[in-house]
Amino acid sequence: METHSAIAELRAELEAVKREVRMLRDVHEVRTLHFKYGYYIDMCLYDEAVDLFADDGLVYFLNGIYRGKESVRRLYAGWFRTMFTKGVNGPVYGFLLDHLLSQDIVDIAEDGLTARGRFRCLMQAGSHESKPDKVRPMPDQCWEAGIHENVYVKDAGIWKIKELNYNMLWQAEYDAGWAHSSVHLEPLTRTFPDDPNGPDALMETAPRFWPHTRVVPFHYPHPVTGRAWTGSAS
Amino acid sequence: METHSAIAELRAELEAVKREVRMLRDVHEVRTLHFKYGYYIDMCLYDEAVDLFADDGLVYFLNGIYRGKESVRRLYAGWFRTMFTKGVNGPVYGFLLDHLLSQDIVDIAEDGLTARGRFRCLMQAGSHESKPDKVRPMPDQCWEAGIHENVYVKDAGIWKIKELNYNMLWQAEYDAGWAHSSVHLEPLTRTFPDDPNGPDALMETAPRFWPHTRVVPFHYPHPVTGRAWTGSAS
Amino acid sequence: METHSAIAELRAELEAVKREVRMLRDVHEVRTLHFKYGYYIDMCLYDEAVDLFADDGLVYFLNGIYRGKESVRRLYAGWFRTMFTKGVNGPVYGFLLDHLLSQDIVDIAEDGLTARGRFRCLMQAGSHESKPDKVRPMPDQCWEAGIHENVYVKDAGIWKIKELNYNMLWQAEYDAGWAHSSVHLEPLTRTFPDDPNGPDALMETAPRFWPHTRVVPFHYPHPVTGRAWTGSAS
Repeated sequence: METHSAIAELRAELEAVKREVRMLRDVHEVRTLHFKYGYYIDMCLYDEAVDLFADDGLVYFLNGIYRGKESVRRLYAGWFRTMFTKGVNGPVYGFLLDHLLSQDIVDIAEDGLTARGRFRCLMQAGSHESKPDKVRPMPDQCWEAGIHENVYVKDAGIWKIKELNYNMLWQAEYDAGWAHSSVHLEPLTRTFPDDPNGPDALMETAPRFWPHTRVVPFHYPHPVTGRAWTGSAS
Repeated sequence: METHSAIAELRAELEAVKREVRMLRDVHEVRTLHFKYGYYIDMCLYDEAVDLFADDGLVYFLNGIYRGKESVRRLYAGWFRTMFTKGVNGPVYGFLLDHLLSQDIVDIAEDGLTARGRFRCLMQAGSHESKPDKVRPMPDQCWEAGIHENVYVKDAGIWKIKELNYNMLWQAEYDAGWAHSSVHLEPLTRTFPDDPNGPDALMETAPRFWPHTRVVPFHYPHPVTGRAWTGSAS
Repeated sequence: METHSAIAELRAELEAVKREVRMLRDVHEVRTLHFKYGYYIDMCLYDEAVDLFADDGLVYFLNGIYRGKESVRRLYAGWFRTMFTKGVNGPVYGFLLDHLLSQDIVDIAEDGLTARGRFRCLMQAGSHESKPDKVRPMPDQCWEAGIHENVYVKDAGIWKIKELNYNMLWQAEYDAGWAHSSVHLEPLTRTFPDDPNGPDALMETAPRFWPHTRVVPFHYPHPVTGRAWTGSAS
């Protein structure tokens, strides 16, 4: 009897520990999933990047919404790969596109099947002067910075990207710097198939870029007060 | 009898595992607490930053010491908010203040109630040329780098900042670069209330900034030799 | 009987949890080991860096291979320390060598005794104009970026660096930027002892640097498809 209840208690505690460990392992898997995404797109490995998405994966890029894996493929293997490497899946001579990803805040949902992650992205990009064909509309050399607020889904035990919500905040030409630059990418105006590499839909309101500023909403409550983030402060 | 000792052994092992898991979860919570701090101050969300501190929280900034939460508030919601956003709690047009936080080394004390964390901070800051009122004494565009060596406390289950010890190491104007810049912030000379936004006390010896260099003492021993850090090597 | 099998089941599950926790703790220890390495070499603490290596530790640097701890010492405490600080073990006036390490992908082997880690490194380096003796062949101020793909070994419970495989990808003068710079470090041509600070061996094929580009092979399979990385895409 006593033994019976001692075993039941151990079992209950063990289950609680297993949930906690599962959560920590999920954090590990989700943060490294994002970092691996970064290493792939550094190297223009767009096929590998697209394979990280769930079938119903979605990307927010500028003011465009790409819905479903085939649309995600259109963005990476269509638009980006055509623009950056003329169709090569991999790095090309004289083209730099480093994505420094950092400052991970990953939270796993109670059921262990979805997750949210906030990350910082700092980019260094450009075309070397010895590269005959420049990548346009990118300047010869530039900075870009933004915040990811992504959603992940666990599908048959494997974490995948459900929503890649990249919020570009500023771009700057290297020579002029951020005090004397504005953003070289324009909001999108056309959707697919009118634009063969276009998004499925446009956001109702396009986000405003530098020199405008904005808070990318935090998916998590304030860690001390517990208050949810309720709106942009500015 | 045999059953009894088997259960006792399981219980002891389970307790050891629980401590280990608790430690790993605390590392997760402390490193993300610091990263959340960074996302708030990027966006001049000073009220949110101040709320991360314990009531007896403390900040070391330049050669100033701010003791207790009201002093911490004076620093963030007084000095910084007045200087950077003229009192707005949130981002303003044309002002950049990105804090890239990385390279976390978090160690939880044996009792699980305090923690230490070392982090790198790289800042990109400045005022866009189209912003009519520049933020001074900050240059139009600049870099800053430093090391945090912070202390955290767990208060009723919630991790808070106990000591934010930010060691700014160098600043550089963007155009000139670090080879041709020195630090634009001067050591503080007055305390509160003589300076209405000043610190409670000044350090006996002000730290020296770039082009001087210094080792910010490591809170941890050498991970292989186990030797504690005993002093600045230079 | 029923009790007996319930205890056996608990024990088996507890062992599985312990392995999982051990793995997560190992990830924590390996990633912070690398970050501590970075903080030491920022500050030219070469003795401390060398002490992080296993006795049979190895470094790949440029096209050179340094085999064994004494060779590793020759690289850090010989070549680097002579070049950067004229023999001082610690930071010197006016010399900057920040290593921002990030984007950790750490995987622990099944047996828990070896690990692999991929990391990004971004460097800001240079000599202040007020420093009378410049560090050459380093430019006055420059960027460097690369990828670590390291191996670690657990020796008597302590993680050490087994292979530090640093793949420098690009360097750029600060003023000119990456569009107008190539790499200031040349491939090595001589080995030790012909070159008193030289490597034990040269790679058969020297890696090509910016404006050439290359994929540093990933030690891990694609996290969704499970496919191993089989070759450079370019």
